[in-house]
Amino acid sequence: MTIEEPKVNEWIQTLDPRNLDKVDWSHFHAAILGVPLSRSSISASAASENPDALRRAWKYFTTYNLDHDEDLSDLNVVDLGDVRQHVTNIEVCHRNIKEAMISIRTVHPQVVPVVMGGDHSITAMLVKGMQTVHSSERIGILQLDTHFDLRNLSDNGPTNGTPIRNLIESGVIKGEDVYNLGLHGFFNARSLKMYADEIGLNYITMREFRKNGIETTINQVLEELSQKVDTIYFTLDMDVLDCSYGPGVPASTPGGMRSDELFEAVYHTGKCTKVKAMDIVCLDPYKDRGEMTTKTAVHSMLSFLTGLKQRLHFTVIS
Amino acid sequence: MTIEEPKVNEWIQTLDPRNLDKVDWSHFHAAILGVPLSRSSISASAASENPDALRRAWKYFTTYNLDHDEDLSDLNVVDLGDVRQHVTNIEVCHRNIKEAMISIRTVHPQVVPVVMGGDHSITAMLVKGMQTVHSSERIGILQLDTHFDLRNLSDNGPTNGTPIRNLIESGVIKGEDVYNLGLHGFFNARSLKMYADEIGLNYITMREFRKNGIETTINQVLEELSQKVDTIYFTLDMDVLDCSYGPGVPASTPGGMRSDELFEAVYHTGKCTKVKAMDIVCLDPYKDRGEMTTKTAVHSMLSFLTGLKQRLHFTVIS
Amino acid sequence: MTIEEPKVNEWIQTLDPRNLDKVDWSHFHAAILGVPLSRSSISASAASENPDALRRAWKYFTTYNLDHDEDLSDLNVVDLGDVRQHVTNIEVCHRNIKEAMISIRTVHPQVVPVVMGGDHSITAMLVKGMQTVHSSERIGILQLDTHFDLRNLSDNGPTNGTPIRNLIESGVIKGEDVYNLGLHGFFNARSLKMYADEIGLNYITMREFRKNGIETTINQVLEELSQKVDTIYFTLDMDVLDCSYGPGVPASTPGGMRSDELFEAVYHTGKCTKVKAMDIVCLDPYKDRGEMTTKTAVHSMLSFLTGLKQRLHFTVIS
Amino acid sequence: MTIEEPKVNEWIQTLDPRNLDKVDWSHFHAAILGVPLSRSSISASAASENPDALRRAWKYFTTYNLDHDEDLSDLNVVDLGDVRQHVTNIEVCHRNIKEAMISIRTVHPQVVPVVMGGDHSITAMLVKGMQTVHSSERIGILQLDTHFDLRNLSDNGPTNGTPIRNLIESGVIKGEDVYNLGLHGFFNARSLKMYADEIGLNYITMREFRKNGIETTINQVLEELSQKVDTIYFTLDMDVLDCSYGPGVPASTPGGMRSDELFEAVYHTGKCTKVKAMDIVCLDPYKDRGEMTTKTAVHSMLSFLTGLKQRLHFTVIS
Amino acid sequence: MTIEEPKVNEWIQTLDPRNLDKVDWSHFHAAILGVPLSRSSISASAASENPDALRRAWKYFTTYNLDHDEDLSDLNVVDLGDVRQHVTNIEVCHRNIKEAMISIRTVHPQVVPVVMGGDHSITAMLVKGMQTVHSSERIGILQLDTHFDLRNLSDNGPTNGTPIRNLIESGVIKGEDVYNLGLHGFFNARSLKMYADEIGLNYITMREFRKNGIETTINQVLEELSQKVDTIYFTLDMDVLDCSYGPGVPASTPGGMRSDELFEAVYHTGKCTKVKAMDIVCLDPYKDRGEMTTKTAVHSMLSFLTGLKQRLHFTVIS
Amino acid sequence: MTIEEPKVNEWIQTLDPRNLDKVDWSHFHAAILGVPLSRSSISASAASENPDALRRAWKYFTTYNLDHDEDLSDLNVVDLGDVRQHVTNIEVCHRNIKEAMISIRTVHPQVVPVVMGGDHSITAMLVKGMQTVHSSERIGILQLDTHFDLRNLSDNGPTNGTPIRNLIESGVIKGEDVYNLGLHGFFNARSLKMYADEIGLNYITMREFRKNGIETTINQVLEELSQKVDTIYFTLDMDVLDCSYGPGVPASTPGGMRSDELFEAVYHTGKCTKVKAMDIVCLDPYKDRGEMTTKTAVHSMLSFLTGLKQRLHFTVIS
Repeated sequence: MTIEEPKVNEWIQTLDPRNLDKVDWSHFHAAILGVPLSRSSISASAASENPDALRRAWKYFTTYNLDHDEDLSDLNVVDLGDVRQHVTNIEVCHRNIKEAMISIRTVHPQVVPVVMGGDHSITAMLVKGMQTVHSSERIGILQLDTHFDLRNLSDNGPTNGTPIRNLIESGVIKGEDVYNLGLHGFFNARSLKMYADEIGLNYITMREFRKNGIETTINQVLEELSQKVDTIYFTLDMDVLDCSYGPGVPASTPGGMRSDELFEAVYHTGKCTKVKAMDIVCLDPYKDRGEMTTKTAVHSMLSFLTGLKQRLHFTVIS
Repeated sequence: MTIEEPKVNEWIQTLDPRNLDKVDWSHFHAAILGVPLSRSSISASAASENPDALRRAWKYFTTYNLDHDEDLSDLNVVDLGDVRQHVTNIEVCHRNIKEAMISIRTVHPQVVPVVMGGDHSITAMLVKGMQTVHSSERIGILQLDTHFDLRNLSDNGPTNGTPIRNLIESGVIKGEDVYNLGLHGFFNARSLKMYADEIGLNYITMREFRKNGIETTINQVLEELSQKVDTIYFTLDMDVLDCSYGPGVPASTPGGMRSDELFEAVYHTGKCTKVKAMDIVCLDPYKDRGEMTTKTAVHSMLSFLTGLKQRLHFTVIS
Repeated sequence: MTIEEPKVNEWIQTLDPRNLDKVDWSHFHAAILGVPLSRSSISASAASENPDALRRAWKYFTTYNLDHDEDLSDLNVVDLGDVRQHVTNIEVCHRNIKEAMISIRTVHPQVVPVVMGGDHSITAMLVKGMQTVHSSERIGILQLDTHFDLRNLSDNGPTNGTPIRNLIESGVIKGEDVYNLGLHGFFNARSLKMYADEIGLNYITMREFRKNGIETTINQVLEELSQKVDTIYFTLDMDVLDCSYGPGVPASTPGGMRSDELFEAVYHTGKCTKVKAMDIVCLDPYKDRGEMTTKTAVHSMLSFLTGLKQRLHFTVIS
Repeated sequence: MTIEEPKVNEWIQTLDPRNLDKVDWSHFHAAILGVPLSRSSISASAASENPDALRRAWKYFTTYNLDHDEDLSDLNVVDLGDVRQHVTNIEVCHRNIKEAMISIRTVHPQVVPVVMGGDHSITAMLVKGMQTVHSSERIGILQLDTHFDLRNLSDNGPTNGTPIRNLIESGVIKGEDVYNLGLHGFFNARSLKMYADEIGLNYITMREFRKNGIETTINQVLEELSQKVDTIYFTLDMDVLDCSYGPGVPASTPGGMRSDELFEAVYHTGKCTKVKAMDIVCLDPYKDRGEMTTKTAVHSMLSFLTGLKQRLHFTVIS
Repeated sequence: MTIEEPKVNEWIQTLDPRNLDKVDWSHFHAAILGVPLSRSSISASAASENPDALRRAWKYFTTYNLDHDEDLSDLNVVDLGDVRQHVTNIEVCHRNIKEAMISIRTVHPQVVPVVMGGDHSITAMLVKGMQTVHSSERIGILQLDTHFDLRNLSDNGPTNGTPIRNLIESGVIKGEDVYNLGLHGFFNARSLKMYADEIGLNYITMREFRKNGIETTINQVLEELSQKVDTIYFTLDMDVLDCSYGPGVPASTPGGMRSDELFEAVYHTGKCTKVKAMDIVCLDPYKDRGEMTTKTAVHSMLSFLTGLKQRLHFTVIS
Repeated sequence: MTIEEPKVNEWIQTLDPRNLDKVDWSHFHAAILGVPLSRSSISASAASENPDALRRAWKYFTTYNLDHDEDLSDLNVVDLGDVRQHVTNIEVCHRNIKEAMISIRTVHPQVVPVVMGGDHSITAMLVKGMQTVHSSERIGILQLDTHFDLRNLSDNGPTNGTPIRNLIESGVIKGEDVYNLGLHGFFNARSLKMYADEIGLNYITMREFRKNGIETTINQVLEELSQKVDTIYFTLDMDVLDCSYGPGVPASTPGGMRSDELFEAVYHTGKCTKVKAMDIVCLDPYKDRGEMTTKTAVHSMLSFLTGLKQRLHFTVIS
């Protein structure tokens, strides 16, 4: 019997820039996009190095998910490379990010974008890009995060502490269409929680999430949100992880999520039909240890794609 | 809506040494005291650096506990600075520690001392200080620890392996009034366990603690102890943590507590009316990684204060 | 009361090479053997340094297991030192390993070998050694591992990715007599899983293992396997650990086992009468942090010996 | 005899923000200014954390320079705190920096500013600020650096690769008035060197610098430059250090300066009458090891102040 | 003026495996070859990871050597990829290495091979390959090393401690044609030194090398050796570096070479007409810190190519 | 030819505690003594772990010094183990240290003690021990150190900042008989320098030491001191190293000595007939990186023994 061991780096396709016009976009299921921007972070961060760190870590993974007996190798996934960033003009960076999403959603709307940030400020730009293309759709957000990310934009502009507020204040998203899971500890001001209550934002703390069961809770949330909106944007802030599982985030905290809990939550999110985009943000590979947070991010992306494949009713023929 | 984000370092008050006589002690609920002593450790330890490490980490925390929807900012907490230590005379260090506790309990007995060690030898001095002031009270001990700390004093004097035995042999505490939670693995000699049995000391291993449920167990223990004694002294040896959660202890071990379990246990302890003092010991910031154990210690202190605030029937008016 | 604190390094006996003929082997219950070979690893590995790293870590442990109230000090355990390895001829290394096992099982079959690897290639040699001596016995394997270790030998010879396949293809072990627990994530090719199915190999993923309960599952597996075979060989690949608990493995992964789960599983394995040998492989102390994986390996060995002692109906008289 | 050991943190004064109008600026000899900006770096950098890192490291130093038998304690040095930065608008940051320098040079021109960056982009702003105030003066630059910092501004704006070109293209500085020492290896494109030649910029490679002697060379350069210009601005890019001496820079390189060579060069620079300002840039404390680069930066600042004091003809009376 | 900044990774060509027959080998000046073998190391080593580590570090370097004002961009250098290694048969690995050298020297003898090891055992194979092709030539060796590498082959086969002895015993090289520079300290047995004396091997200790001047000494040695032999093979064992400059070697030592000394020595070696091949061995990127030893190795390779270019009388036309 | 490679750990003898009376002390040339005390350090230090760290590092060294072509294997050196320390009574520790030296010098005065500290406080005890035995001799001190170690004993007792003052104030040593080499930077208060001047203590800064030549300077100092005193005690504080060469000291500093300079100085010290004892202090192996400071300490001890052997007119017969 032949043993074939395709690795993720061999499976994900890259585009030949000389032949972009010959690409048949219609057969892609998901498109990976790097957004190497972390100048917009409040704390010093090298999250800009994350897209390349994730790509380098692909080689550690096969395409086969043993937990769910699913092989990703016949899912067509393309790596589009990175959105071009400017060194000293963050506004230009943000504009480029939004336009990249517009371009993806316009030309090939069946492809699910999987975005490797970058800091959390990019989520506002990506969702705005989606909304520009699908202006008649109601978009909701599923957020795994230690923070609300509801800080005031008037203080320091569209930083990584503001994306959800940015989307709410600009009318792109309603507070009631945001579900935040994983909040915990002393890492959000009370005033932010009061603002969240005021706008009707939904949240479940890490403690409740764990108590009620990861699988049960995530599916309830996805169902509830699916009934409200047309499209769900899934944003995964890696700082949701406990610092023992995710040392590679700019300000890692104790009391957070474990990686097995994260993979469970992300897998079920991938299975949900209304989830049309995903991003992974705030991973600083310079702070990582033994690439463990990086590997956890890649595993999350692959768990999401496992769910996506099952949702698309694929059958593997061996 | 105004977003205010008070940080723990902005909230905890420090005393102006020039105006100590004008301080109105009556309005303080808790007093933080540093005890930078680790010369009394059996193994080499930089736990003496811990008080300053904790202070430096305060800035990472807001005053708002999202898990229990409680804001600490109207709890009045003062940092009294450090007890003066001697470099080459440990007896003098120990005397100063005892006297510091006597002074606190005498002048302002309503204030709950929260002591940042230092190694575990200081607990014997602090409890002796309490007993000197409240000589008619029966004092019990709740201990989260990987070890019994029941070693013989005749071998090497009052080291960090001896505090509980010190208190028992000096008649300050009865064996039956000590409850040790978190013991596990191969880190205590059988002879110590036999001594513990002999004096009627109570203990629950980490394995049982987890099996029976953290919340349930800690509350049963607190209730049982509350019925026996007038005052409970709570001592948290950070080495109770599993080495993946608490790398910053002189001899970290596998098989210990997780930080979410610790926060749960400490929060409920803070709520218990009879708990009148807390210490956090045996954290060596030089061994820490990314300040994770340090942050876990600060979080524990804040979880305790959350319980304390709820016990005091505070109401936050926004 | 006298406090005695025997440490593991004081308890485990070493042989005086000048007096080997005077050794009374009949009183030994277990024999520790080092196999410092990692040249046969696919990835670069310093697992060859593991036997000495484990020995150096013995001093951190007492002989008393508090979780199960069992003192190992009257179990007779001998450290036989290391099997001699060749620097540039792996075949010689493998032959020496097999012969060491033959020698142990021939001369003193009542002694349980506990082997400190080295990489996983050694397991094939050790089991072949056992089978040479006990040729009429049916041997089964209990494997805690992130991988199947079923790779093709024709590609690169008997590497650390091949031991189980090696044993199956050479007819030493039947596929149905192998039980693999702890597989998870994207770390095995689908083709390996199909081969496993083809040969009837049994496996339970980490996710199922945890869901069904560690204690329940391991005991069911041990019972099932005990009914099939005469002898169970227990192989513990340290890469079964989650990377936050076991950083010291050549390619640590997220989503794996926690150390408290591991100790539980290993303890019950030690109690099972048919388990006659154990190995611990693929621990690279150069990659470890604060000796945490090393300590976890020693703790696993001691947990196994705790089970072994209880199985042998020892009584400690104090 | 009384032993007094004043530390640098006790000696450097800080301003009480409530009493700024009562400050007598006339008695200050030097003013320290933090510029926590590193968003303008080409590579990810946490140089923004440097000002605070340097301040925290002051406590490791006494005020007494044993090499030159000089006590700094009667030099009056004030720490002005940090220039306020914006998180998402680098233009605002740069404007604030320039204005801070204008303010210092206008109100108290006798004070020598010592600026703790931040990345190298700030140097252009600081020199422009100086030139705004002293518009009739010819300003020259002494630069210790591994790079020319002559990159094109049109590509990515005023990044940390551009300050010298920025100053030349804006007419603030002439090429012939720039002296770069410490260039080495393969870290500058040939096109940059050709541009340097074109504008008449002066440079001495690290290899020549060492061959000709540090003390001799630096004094020749200072003399030559002093004859050309009215004012010398001294910019120290910490990446001039060899990576074994300065691990804490965003892209440290082999083949650079040793710290004893650096201290020698900086001390003589401090003694030169025409040197009116100094900055220390591109130190990323997150990349540092054991605070060694941080300590080297503080030592450099103190070596400069030693020279400054000797230049001012101070006499210490004991 | 246009600023172009070609990086080393953009300059070094890679072969398209589909078009190897169309490659015009005649225009290449140097060919880079990876040999990812470290199983033959006495100590555990991940030197097998070195070729890829060096390739990843190319991006940190421009093609322009500022110290010698030389641009490498019109030198034609090709990366041939890695020699295929076997996991469990070191003999096969060694045979492949020898054959790779034979193939290079046979087909395109004008190309200078620059080999990225691997451990030092590969040098014996590479020199044997050269001698096979150029059997009438007398080959000499210039070795920068902390060790003689004269260990007995009969003990453990052709390990990394044996290459020079291997070449001498097999008659490929005469003892008098070997020049070892950089030996120091207590890292060679006296018996090895006596063997070296016996066979007339030449050596200069690090202490003498430094005392007499790096540039002077290396040129004397090269001249002396050039007069004896037809071809010089240059082998650079990275363990020649002091441990503060080269932490990334399996057993780094104090008292060794500094990187500026190394670059000087290597540059002059590159200029010597008789030097026809170079290897860089015993760099373990897993032990490295901040890629500093890796960068030093790349810098050495580029310094060698700088000398090579000057030897070939290139003229850069700008 | 036979290749024998004796390692330092195989060469240094250890005493069998059961046969101490049968030991023939007369044939020993040097005796190694561990003093695991660092509780008396001002800063937190694990220098207590140093003796064992040095012993573990012996295996990295052969007995042959290539720089001076000297084999130590026929020098008789014995490791006496560690002086017993008390955990909570530093006075007892100090008394034991003094008595150990008295015992060595009384029973076998021809043996040169080489002491592995511990912190610098032990030097005062060791010299006092020597003086007790040789009360008629005038003892001088050669000190390699970044600090004077002249702090006031009345503040904190006999800490590691006080040994030289301790010896001077107690009349054991005269100020003029102390020679301190290696002082540099801002690491001593001016008041200490004034005290040193007052008592006539001799010192040469690192900058002068290097300028005048290590070999020349050390030999001048040794000659000068030899003319004054009967016996020279040599104390090596490892903090004399630059932080890039010696990261493993409690407060490492930039601007210090390089390891090749240190080995040169120590070797010549070993050759000086009047030098009768040596200690190595203030090395904290927990702060070390890759054992580099530890290896440097072992190399220093071996360099000293090389000088000692040459002084004793040994001849190696091969």
